[in-house]
Amino acid sequence: MSASGTPTERVAGERSAAAATAPSAAAGAAVAAAPATATYRVGLLGYGTVGSAFASLLQQRAEAIARTAGRRPELVGTLTRSRGDFDRILADSELIVELIGGVEPAREYLLRALRAGRHVVTANKLLLSQHGEELLQAAREAGVQLRFEAAVAGVVPVIRVLGESLAGAHVERVHGIVNGTTNFILSEMAAGASYEQALAEAQRQGYAEADPSEDVSGRDAAAKMAILARLAFGAPVHIDQVPYEGIEQLQTDDLLYARELGLGLKLIGTAERRDGGLSVRVHPAFLYGGHPLASVGGPYNAVTVESEAITEITMSGPGAGGPQTASAVLGDLVSTMLPPAAPAVPLAPLELVSDVPSAFYIHIELADRPGALAAVAQALGEQGASIRSVLQRGLGEHARLVMVIHPLLESSLREALRRIGELDFLRATPRAIRVIDEEFV
Amino acid sequence: MSASGTPTERVAGERSAAAATAPSAAAGAAVAAAPATATYRVGLLGYGTVGSAFASLLQQRAEAIARTAGRRPELVGTLTRSRGDFDRILADSELIVELIGGVEPAREYLLRALRAGRHVVTANKLLLSQHGEELLQAAREAGVQLRFEAAVAGVVPVIRVLGESLAGAHVERVHGIVNGTTNFILSEMAAGASYEQALAEAQRQGYAEADPSEDVSGRDAAAKMAILARLAFGAPVHIDQVPYEGIEQLQTDDLLYARELGLGLKLIGTAERRDGGLSVRVHPAFLYGGHPLASVGGPYNAVTVESEAITEITMSGPGAGGPQTASAVLGDLVSTMLPPAAPAVPLAPLELVSDVPSAFYIHIELADRPGALAAVAQALGEQGASIRSVLQRGLGEHARLVMVIHPLLESSLREALRRIGELDFLRATPRAIRVIDEEFV
Repeated sequence: MSASGTPTERVAGERSAAAATAPSAAAGAAVAAAPATATYRVGLLGYGTVGSAFASLLQQRAEAIARTAGRRPELVGTLTRSRGDFDRILADSELIVELIGGVEPAREYLLRALRAGRHVVTANKLLLSQHGEELLQAAREAGVQLRFEAAVAGVVPVIRVLGESLAGAHVERVHGIVNGTTNFILSEMAAGASYEQALAEAQRQGYAEADPSEDVSGRDAAAKMAILARLAFGAPVHIDQVPYEGIEQLQTDDLLYARELGLGLKLIGTAERRDGGLSVRVHPAFLYGGHPLASVGGPYNAVTVESEAITEITMSGPGAGGPQTASAVLGDLVSTMLPPAAPAVPLAPLELVSDVPSAFYIHIELADRPGALAAVAQALGEQGASIRSVLQRGLGEHARLVMVIHPLLESSLREALRRIGELDFLRATPRAIRVIDEEFV
Repeated sequence: MSASGTPTERVAGERSAAAATAPSAAAGAAVAAAPATATYRVGLLGYGTVGSAFASLLQQRAEAIARTAGRRPELVGTLTRSRGDFDRILADSELIVELIGGVEPAREYLLRALRAGRHVVTANKLLLSQHGEELLQAAREAGVQLRFEAAVAGVVPVIRVLGESLAGAHVERVHGIVNGTTNFILSEMAAGASYEQALAEAQRQGYAEADPSEDVSGRDAAAKMAILARLAFGAPVHIDQVPYEGIEQLQTDDLLYARELGLGLKLIGTAERRDGGLSVRVHPAFLYGGHPLASVGGPYNAVTVESEAITEITMSGPGAGGPQTASAVLGDLVSTMLPPAAPAVPLAPLELVSDVPSAFYIHIELADRPGALAAVAQALGEQGASIRSVLQRGLGEHARLVMVIHPLLESSLREALRRIGELDFLRATPRAIRVIDEEFV
């Protein structure tokens, strides 16, 4: 079924990537003493948003991957709607990366690739939720890998964690926010926007498609939950077995009333053991504020896995976007190359830097003399510190200043504290504690 | 160097586990037509809290692992302080699991195991942070796997995600809460306890050792950050290169003042690119309330990995405890058995359950006649619903009831809503939205 295996000419779609790797291959050939790094031949199906982001990321990271995995991944062919020949790409590749989407022709291509002994990496949730068993069986029979981290939850590595870290665990429940579009819309509605306004904003910011029905109906999330249920419980689940409700019918006033009861709304996918069987479903759900998923806002995804032995693991990160999905695909690609448990010798050790800037909380106990605050501020200012916020508490001999300063080198902070410590109205050594990541006020 | 390879007698420590697996092996031999599942021979070094939890978990999950990975893992020997012979265990095993802790003799055992061609799984952060390069090199030279998920952050799969999902990524920063003992103490102090009170409570609940100095000094976190920095940046980092500050000097009033400024305190480990080099450090740090790590309370761990392509991934879960660490070790064990990308055929598909109980938010628009609330409550009560909280808004003809009910089967809720919808004072179809995980109020 597969074409003969001679490497052939490359197609138009990946000409730039191929050109970029050519010089280093040529350099390897020129220096006879140093053997050229072997290549890992990758065929790419699909060159849309994710496909082009993947081709670009692969080119950027090829050198670093070669250091880790021993071979340099290289695109040997790209199939687009108008260009490229699947048989040729298949013949030239060790790995097929599928980023076409949809059921056909992706299904046919992947079955042929697996049966021809090629590893496959795909981001195709619709295909996996409908034909996952067929594809997994083909991979098993051929003894090759089928990886699909990018099909669920963007960069959140839930597929790997369920399939590997928790392969020996008895999972009770997997649930979470697996659609970033709807989470963005619900975050906007929680701030008072109507559904229509929120959807328009999501479209404006590129989080929702012109036809958003796959996302807002809950069907996209249902496909992902079918895939997660398959992995977590080892039971074949088809998307048609997953009841789903979307967010189109939600009304902003429900979100506002519920907030008075301490509740926030999310579109939640659940797969859990129930009455000796399995329940898999998607629907909007209210959560109380202390829930680990309650604080996941905007276009983020988050998944919690529960099991008696581990209690729970929660993972969160941006939902699907071109670069994020491409990054998940690249992680899968590297995994098909090598068992990564014994990383290569580092080739370029980094120097350790010790004096770094940080914002600081500073606590100063002092006798509140005229000019005291000015003297403290001057000692800070001389070292380049600027004050972000300040509290003064207590009176007279038992006053204290509590302040937060903007980022400053640690060595400068120490010098400022030393000088403050010498002021005659100080009642105790000043204390300082770092404040990090100020953007999260 | 390794002893001859004949399977020999088992030592005392794992007699119960061996006895438990014997019957199924015997059953396999009795049914001549069905070939006995092959075993995966595991040697265990150390039988303390984690070692015994691991032996017990392995026994519970051996059957399920055999279905996934094709072979049944079995303990062939256990080395305790007083019992067992390392040479014999090494000769009998394909995998050595090291849960002794400390540098020697663990280092010598693991080097011998790796050089003898055995995979190694270890939870030993001190050893890895001091002799990681030597061990990784031995693994590379022997072509075997060295896995250590359990050495950092309990069940949080940060080692796997950095080493595999992000093996192709350009990581900018890894930071987080990697010591559950100190996070518990800081959570208690944030609620007003003194350091001494908080430490005593941590010891009482089993989160802190009688001698807590490794944890509270920050040295435990420094060892973990050395390991994470090694993985994230491919640069060898020794624990002695990681400056650390602990939490012993912290004063509760600083936590309380800082709260007025919107800040919460965590012990944060950081490894990040900085000025073309690398900064790795551990110190207490204040975070603003919107920070993803700010809501991580009690004995939990959480790690955020940042990279341009992925933006960020945050993972959280319980820090080290016997069962959690054992579960992380088991995940590594399964990974040494097989590439898990093509899971085995499910042997016991689970039935899909569709009618599940849930709490509900209910919104009813009504004309507020005498007896209206009673009629609604009766319709709910007849289906077994009980009301958790209720708001009544508006007046007269334009009133509305907003309530949350305790969990009820979805079919019962639908029936209650149908009956409520028939009441003559209703002004619109009642709306209901699920409320999940009520324990997080």
